[in-house]
Amino acid sequence: MSFDHLQDQIRSLKNPTVAGLDTRVEYMPSFLLKKYTSRYGETLEAAAQAVLEFDCGLIDALTGVVPAVKPQAAYFECLGWRGMQVMEQVMGYAKEKGMFVIADIKRGDIGTTAAAYSEGWLGMTRVGSTDCPVFNADCVTLNGYMGSDAVKPFLRDCITQNKSAFVLAKTSNPSSVELQDMVAGDRLVYTAMGDLIQRWGADTIGKYGYTSLGAVIGATHPSVLKELRRRLDKTFFLVPGYGAQGGTAADVSCAFDELGRGAIVNASRSILCAWQKTGKDGRDYQEAARAAAEKMRDEILEYVTIM
Amino acid sequence: MSFDHLQDQIRSLKNPTVAGLDTRVEYMPSFLLKKYTSRYGETLEAAAQAVLEFDCGLIDALTGVVPAVKPQAAYFECLGWRGMQVMEQVMGYAKEKGMFVIADIKRGDIGTTAAAYSEGWLGMTRVGSTDCPVFNADCVTLNGYMGSDAVKPFLRDCITQNKSAFVLAKTSNPSSVELQDMVAGDRLVYTAMGDLIQRWGADTIGKYGYTSLGAVIGATHPSVLKELRRRLDKTFFLVPGYGAQGGTAADVSCAFDELGRGAIVNASRSILCAWQKTGKDGRDYQEAARAAAEKMRDEILEYVTIM
Repeated sequence: MSFDHLQDQIRSLKNPTVAGLDTRVEYMPSFLLKKYTSRYGETLEAAAQAVLEFDCGLIDALTGVVPAVKPQAAYFECLGWRGMQVMEQVMGYAKEKGMFVIADIKRGDIGTTAAAYSEGWLGMTRVGSTDCPVFNADCVTLNGYMGSDAVKPFLRDCITQNKSAFVLAKTSNPSSVELQDMVAGDRLVYTAMGDLIQRWGADTIGKYGYTSLGAVIGATHPSVLKELRRRLDKTFFLVPGYGAQGGTAADVSCAFDELGRGAIVNASRSILCAWQKTGKDGRDYQEAARAAAEKMRDEILEYVTIM
Repeated sequence: MSFDHLQDQIRSLKNPTVAGLDTRVEYMPSFLLKKYTSRYGETLEAAAQAVLEFDCGLIDALTGVVPAVKPQAAYFECLGWRGMQVMEQVMGYAKEKGMFVIADIKRGDIGTTAAAYSEGWLGMTRVGSTDCPVFNADCVTLNGYMGSDAVKPFLRDCITQNKSAFVLAKTSNPSSVELQDMVAGDRLVYTAMGDLIQRWGADTIGKYGYTSLGAVIGATHPSVLKELRRRLDKTFFLVPGYGAQGGTAADVSCAFDELGRGAIVNASRSILCAWQKTGKDGRDYQEAARAAAEKMRDEILEYVTIM
């Protein structure tokens, strides 16, 4: 089961973090964008090519430090099909480098539509009698508002293709309270969603005791992390919101089990934009990102011992 | 405000329906796929080119009959970047033909990420000092599980770009009950989501009395449609689930106000796959789709008079 593979890589690098590739055009050093706008004009093609160079440069710099990357689809989609082409290339490059790739797509749709999304992101799309790999991620993020119909097609591909998925439970943003914190019987909506996630994944427990269907729980709610870690004892957690959004190392330590397993913490901007704090023009973006990733790892390892 | 534009087109064609372009490879006549696999092999490129021809053929056949099309992103994404390129082309073609284009993407993410999605699908992406249009839909579908953070960036583009969006409230699929029908205080979760949608859109009321932020309410729940039509009196409805999923003309009539306005009903498979029922080899897919769309329109107009 595929979180086994991720947990193996976390243990081998002694680093339970994932670098989010949220490459907004403005997050890149301007010399890099200019390199391509001078060739292609101020076009989506120029931006996409700059993102390709920047993200692959980040992956080079982070190889051997972080076990996983999480490209965020929005920042590729906003560059149109050229952005999606670059997303395929970036994901392929990260896999070549041995990284675990979580496609942050937060898709949620039903029946044959969910199956099509799953074929595109985890499985393969059949054309005639040929199965064609498409984005081929190791793992995706999903939105379960529509219920199990939206998740089960992905779960099938998780089992047959040895992959995994995270479903949103309690997200890190301020307005997550509006729906997720409503009282529903003896639970809150996010607890109910967490219970569904653990139940849907129940038949897919791997060697570390976790299913193939994880949950997204924001770092900005440490008491929620603690409560859900106890309650969802077979559910692997993806924890966004570290750093820029306010989550601390002490906060996220609540997401791990007593063996320091069962969770991975994401940081995006603090790694991508680390070059903005060195007072240079961004030509040091790789070293700055690597140093920021090492710092985050070390901060978390003060609170978490990975067995 | 943009549902005004859609409502104008519905009134002018006397047809409150939208054709969903859910073009799964198997839904196309085999002669069409073969035309391209013989040129490109059994590849994503072949499938994407076949989808382009099929969808544009459908748009030609439906022009003058249906006011809107709703391309479903999953069926383009599962063909990779070539699929996304075709999605851009199909959307552009439908707009050239005067159709209102609803991109069925069900995206939901927060802050700068939601802003990036919105730039890509409704607004424009800035590269240097140039604003570049990307997918440029008239309208999108969204998932509001993360709360207003996930919706407000789109709402901004709705206002500045004269566009609109539908947020999922009560979906048409069987497992929608698992989360959406939980009791939350004196409401159900989907009612609470509906209330949020109407509140978020409150400042964007157009000439027909509806905001720019609509709600998705499945045709498979006529009593819910009736209840929410009363409760959400300023919220435009997108009603999926007609036909193949079981919703009837009498069912969907509950979605309209007393002037026959405020809703649009979607059908996908019954139009796309109409050619499978004529006993020919699919070369009549255009006529079959047009006849199915006209039949659906006529069935609904038996229950709804559009003023």
